[in-house]
Amino acid sequence: MNKQFYLTLFLCLFGCLVQAQTLKSPNGDFTLEVELREGRPYYKLDYKGKAVIKPSGMGFELKDQADMMDGFEILNEETSSNDDSWEPLWGEYKEIQNKYNELLLTLGQQGEEDRKLHIRFRLFDDGLGFRYEFPKQENLNYFIITEEHTEFHLAGDHKAFWIPGDYDTNEYFYTTSKLSEVDGKMEKATHTVHAQHPIETLAVQTPLMLKSDNGLYINIHEAALINYPAMQLNLDPSDFKLSSHLVPDAVGNKGYLQTEALTPWRTVIVSDKATDILASTLILNLNEPTAYEDVSWIKPVKYIGMWWELFVPQGKTWAYSDATNLKLEDDFSQLEPSGRHGATNENVKMYLDFAAEHGFDAVLVEGWNIGWEDWFGEWKEDVFDFVTPYPDFDVEEMQQYAESKGVRLMMHHETSGSVSNYERRLDRAFQFMQDHGYNSVKTGYVGKIIPRGEHHDGQWMVNHYIHVARRAADYGIMINSHEAVRPTGLHRTFPNWLAQESARGTEFEAMGGLTPEHTTILPFTRMMGGPMDYTPGIFQTDLSYYDENSDGRVNTTLVKQLAYYVTIYSPLQMAADLPSNYERFLDAFQFIKDVALDWDETHFLEAEPGDYVTIARKAKGKDEWFIGSVTDENEREATVDFSFLPQGRTFTATIYADGDDASYDENPQSYTITEMEVTSETTLTQKVARGGGLAISVK
Amino acid sequence: MNKQFYLTLFLCLFGCLVQAQTLKSPNGDFTLEVELREGRPYYKLDYKGKAVIKPSGMGFELKDQADMMDGFEILNEETSSNDDSWEPLWGEYKEIQNKYNELLLTLGQQGEEDRKLHIRFRLFDDGLGFRYEFPKQENLNYFIITEEHTEFHLAGDHKAFWIPGDYDTNEYFYTTSKLSEVDGKMEKATHTVHAQHPIETLAVQTPLMLKSDNGLYINIHEAALINYPAMQLNLDPSDFKLSSHLVPDAVGNKGYLQTEALTPWRTVIVSDKATDILASTLILNLNEPTAYEDVSWIKPVKYIGMWWELFVPQGKTWAYSDATNLKLEDDFSQLEPSGRHGATNENVKMYLDFAAEHGFDAVLVEGWNIGWEDWFGEWKEDVFDFVTPYPDFDVEEMQQYAESKGVRLMMHHETSGSVSNYERRLDRAFQFMQDHGYNSVKTGYVGKIIPRGEHHDGQWMVNHYIHVARRAADYGIMINSHEAVRPTGLHRTFPNWLAQESARGTEFEAMGGLTPEHTTILPFTRMMGGPMDYTPGIFQTDLSYYDENSDGRVNTTLVKQLAYYVTIYSPLQMAADLPSNYERFLDAFQFIKDVALDWDETHFLEAEPGDYVTIARKAKGKDEWFIGSVTDENEREATVDFSFLPQGRTFTATIYADGDDASYDENPQSYTITEMEVTSETTLTQKVARGGGLAISVK
Repeated sequence: MNKQFYLTLFLCLFGCLVQAQTLKSPNGDFTLEVELREGRPYYKLDYKGKAVIKPSGMGFELKDQADMMDGFEILNEETSSNDDSWEPLWGEYKEIQNKYNELLLTLGQQGEEDRKLHIRFRLFDDGLGFRYEFPKQENLNYFIITEEHTEFHLAGDHKAFWIPGDYDTNEYFYTTSKLSEVDGKMEKATHTVHAQHPIETLAVQTPLMLKSDNGLYINIHEAALINYPAMQLNLDPSDFKLSSHLVPDAVGNKGYLQTEALTPWRTVIVSDKATDILASTLILNLNEPTAYEDVSWIKPVKYIGMWWELFVPQGKTWAYSDATNLKLEDDFSQLEPSGRHGATNENVKMYLDFAAEHGFDAVLVEGWNIGWEDWFGEWKEDVFDFVTPYPDFDVEEMQQYAESKGVRLMMHHETSGSVSNYERRLDRAFQFMQDHGYNSVKTGYVGKIIPRGEHHDGQWMVNHYIHVARRAADYGIMINSHEAVRPTGLHRTFPNWLAQESARGTEFEAMGGLTPEHTTILPFTRMMGGPMDYTPGIFQTDLSYYDENSDGRVNTTLVKQLAYYVTIYSPLQMAADLPSNYERFLDAFQFIKDVALDWDETHFLEAEPGDYVTIARKAKGKDEWFIGSVTDENEREATVDFSFLPQGRTFTATIYADGDDASYDENPQSYTITEMEVTSETTLTQKVARGGGLAISVK
Repeated sequence: MNKQFYLTLFLCLFGCLVQAQTLKSPNGDFTLEVELREGRPYYKLDYKGKAVIKPSGMGFELKDQADMMDGFEILNEETSSNDDSWEPLWGEYKEIQNKYNELLLTLGQQGEEDRKLHIRFRLFDDGLGFRYEFPKQENLNYFIITEEHTEFHLAGDHKAFWIPGDYDTNEYFYTTSKLSEVDGKMEKATHTVHAQHPIETLAVQTPLMLKSDNGLYINIHEAALINYPAMQLNLDPSDFKLSSHLVPDAVGNKGYLQTEALTPWRTVIVSDKATDILASTLILNLNEPTAYEDVSWIKPVKYIGMWWELFVPQGKTWAYSDATNLKLEDDFSQLEPSGRHGATNENVKMYLDFAAEHGFDAVLVEGWNIGWEDWFGEWKEDVFDFVTPYPDFDVEEMQQYAESKGVRLMMHHETSGSVSNYERRLDRAFQFMQDHGYNSVKTGYVGKIIPRGEHHDGQWMVNHYIHVARRAADYGIMINSHEAVRPTGLHRTFPNWLAQESARGTEFEAMGGLTPEHTTILPFTRMMGGPMDYTPGIFQTDLSYYDENSDGRVNTTLVKQLAYYVTIYSPLQMAADLPSNYERFLDAFQFIKDVALDWDETHFLEAEPGDYVTIARKAKGKDEWFIGSVTDENEREATVDFSFLPQGRTFTATIYADGDDASYDENPQSYTITEMEVTSETTLTQKVARGGGLAISVK
């Protein structure tokens, strides 16, 4: 599938006088101009004649040596084109086209430094990617980046969907505001999140979604974040200029590089249609093909878990006892059990029974291992050992039971941010998994990082997450990381890194609730980088069900939870609610049982960030389609145009819709399930309740 | 052997009015007084009526909570005595007596804090040890130490043998000066050492050796450094007051503790005889018994190595090629070999042949693994993988060859300070060793530490070294660590941690030379904590032998190198010179072949720090004795009193002496080997040349 059609269109050798260059996207919609101004490189991006990025500077400050900001001249310009396609191991499409025009600039700093810097621009039909490349050279070998100075000078005071810049967390709710209003809204936006480290300057995170007054949708992010810190964005609110702000390490440096070194790709995805942003494959195309030879063991996973029980009022606990101040070397069998521990043999068997009965692949069990009594908030290094179960969880027995039922147990490795501890135990932890039949693990990074001074989104941690994925691959293990740096399409390269959390997910529904609009923004922000383990499927949304004194509420209708299985793409999907709740709504639960995890086609039918999203997907290798639609706090009419169906055939659609009287806050469990015949000519309009959704399966 | 005779002598319950307490050593030589002054604990130590430590304060600054410096009252005082003995797995004595009187103070801070602190004092016949203990308690659970404030208020302007305070290295030469002169000599004393981080305040390191004008020898150090940073000592030169200065972590904190927490023991060893300092077993007694159940695999090791060749002029290299800027993923087999690589199959076979012929246990091979081309100075994380040999070193072939000769290969794990890299590869590195028949490893930490911001002597690294020892034990592997924090007697607890460098060793003889007095100071300083892999045995001391343009010189006579095998105690002893040099002096080499590694008895016959040391030792389980004597740059008469021999028997002594015309700088290879009959009545006086030595074997 890797047919490559490279066409070298233009080659300008050293000494040529041209100091500016223009590149067009294959479809002609984008125009990129690159030039030097007083020796500093600037780029400029237009879409259909409208300015997207005004001339924006590029370059680096380096430690203990001259900066690479200016003093450049263009030594070489090389353009080429590519048009081929590739098949992801799993994903939203069976095949992805990789079509772009490329400009590779070779810049030279003369004089004492005599150094070279490459900037590679790839202009796709859906946007721009560019990265810096530091080739091997005499005068640049090992070097330390103090700051990257890449600007994104926006053309106006766009509406932005943003979360605050932070070195350690992305679990903020989204704020929607004009860029000029970010400063005024920053304090409220920077609400308390565990282990947060907000940036002191005015900064926001990527993926950053923007909408201009002249109708452009713009998304700024990065692709292939490897051996480099995450990029956050400083904002100059007077001029709407964004500039890169890399996450520092413990001593304040940003990145340690060795030539040949490549930065991640900086990405700007643009369209005048919101659905095109969601349909973009630019970030995946900028990532490298899989690093593994054998990928036969990597499969999408539908799972349930002993998990939501830990969040609901009067629920279970991760910890086995009420003791505190314990150490790993303590004898946990001597502790008095609290009676509220969730990961007991009895409880886990119930989950395994339910999983087997309803065809789930796996059961996640959190709180199975010693250390949870005082795992958080102490910056403690030896928190968990990842191999010692609590006295009431018999790994061997549970594994045999799971095997007898044809279900897998899913491992849980919470690190509490103590990553040095995790790394030094990693081989043993994975060996333990292999010895006990586990083939997937949910990892967690809740807490301040150890090595102390490092951050979740710094270069050291970025390398850690990839290290875990690679080492897991040695053991045939799939990864589902929570609280890690947000994704940048690396699941193409490391396809056993099935999904991440890396945003505010369902757990926050039990901790104050998410806004109804949250999941209409996620596809345009967090999801741009890769699949999310959002853990949907909560049917019992009114939490007073568990405790009459609770006013907690999951801010969706039941049907919206079904829609998430389509609108929040992931090859790893959880049915997060308690089995007993599913048993109360088995007809609705059928959608979760039916919905596919892997797709041949995806069609973004309608979307507006902050308002609604409607998506249709075709199951991989099957004549089955699933449609999901979600709205924000406002009722609306969803329109499903079935023209994606094969022409001339008739299918049966099962329509899971909010009831007429449904709403997320007053009547979330009102739903209807109806059937209708559909063809490629059918267009369905269907009311979606306030905070509601729509889910359709077609066979 | 652990008969314990605890006698509770005195018990003062809460509320008792006594606010001062006196403790005597079992032999009555020491008097310790402890009291509270305005709520702060102070201790005072006398020896035979002479002040050693004037009243000195104790306590802690804590982070984000009230300090534990004052506001104390004494809640309880408990005294007890111990007199038992134990047998070290290996060491200088077959049996060690552990006799002390103990005072355990329970201090309480009232009011809001309501916290408790224990201070445990143990007064031995050779000195004082005390530590802080933070018991489990309601108001102190997890806490961070900002600084420990333990003072050692000396009674006068003593002569000190010191190296500069430094967070990362102890490889300084020793300066001898009055305490009042330290400040003036600090700049010169703080000469360049790789990866150094000198303390900005006026500070020196422990073990600190002192000699008072009134004839006392005083040694200050610590014992059982576990889960705590190393203690260095601030110096107030006007008042001769030393105070603890803990090594900080990346964010400036000193120690992260969880109750129950114990600090290391602070030790003050005192005598009016210098030899008593060397004979002290106080530090070992303050360490815990071995942590391992099975120790049968731990054995002393006599070894040679492909090592000194790397240091001599025109010598070999660790690196395989002259290439630079390489990465682990590069194909090293494609590099052009430089022709100077030391760890080739051919060269290693020569060492293995020599080791087999002369009865050595093992051959160290440095530079066997990829990564040495640019391993140092770049703060590079993925420097070595510890499992990939260079193309010209065939691990399987070498291992088979070694096995056929009855010799072991000794592994080499240089980390370049990239400890996070080492830890995440550690299980694989040790598994590789086990798979290939290695049972010992020399580890190295040359370079700035990664995790960046951590220091060689901080809590995180202290825990690392112990982690390596423990994990090595899982694989039956013995450790020889270089550039680690200096030892504190932990080889009692972790006896597979055979030896350390942790001071200026023989390698510096090839990098400017050591002073002749250096090895008369080491026993009183570095060696107080544990065995040193000094790597003696250099016969070819004039380095112009290798390159006529070299003026390099090992600043000893040949015989002094022999004496080191007795004066520098270690269960791990290297014959460091090239086999070809030993073949030129096979008669002298016989001493190295004969000398024991493990001892029943040790007799410190005469010693003066900075001047000379004469030691006799009885081989474990054999009627064989070995005597070593070294002097500084001055010629002297060594006196060997053989009264340590069994009475009424006659033995043959082989005396390796400096020739009449010998000296370290003009005629180092002049020596005589003579035999004489000796009994317990014999006293030998023997001239020792300038920078010379004396070595005697008795059978």
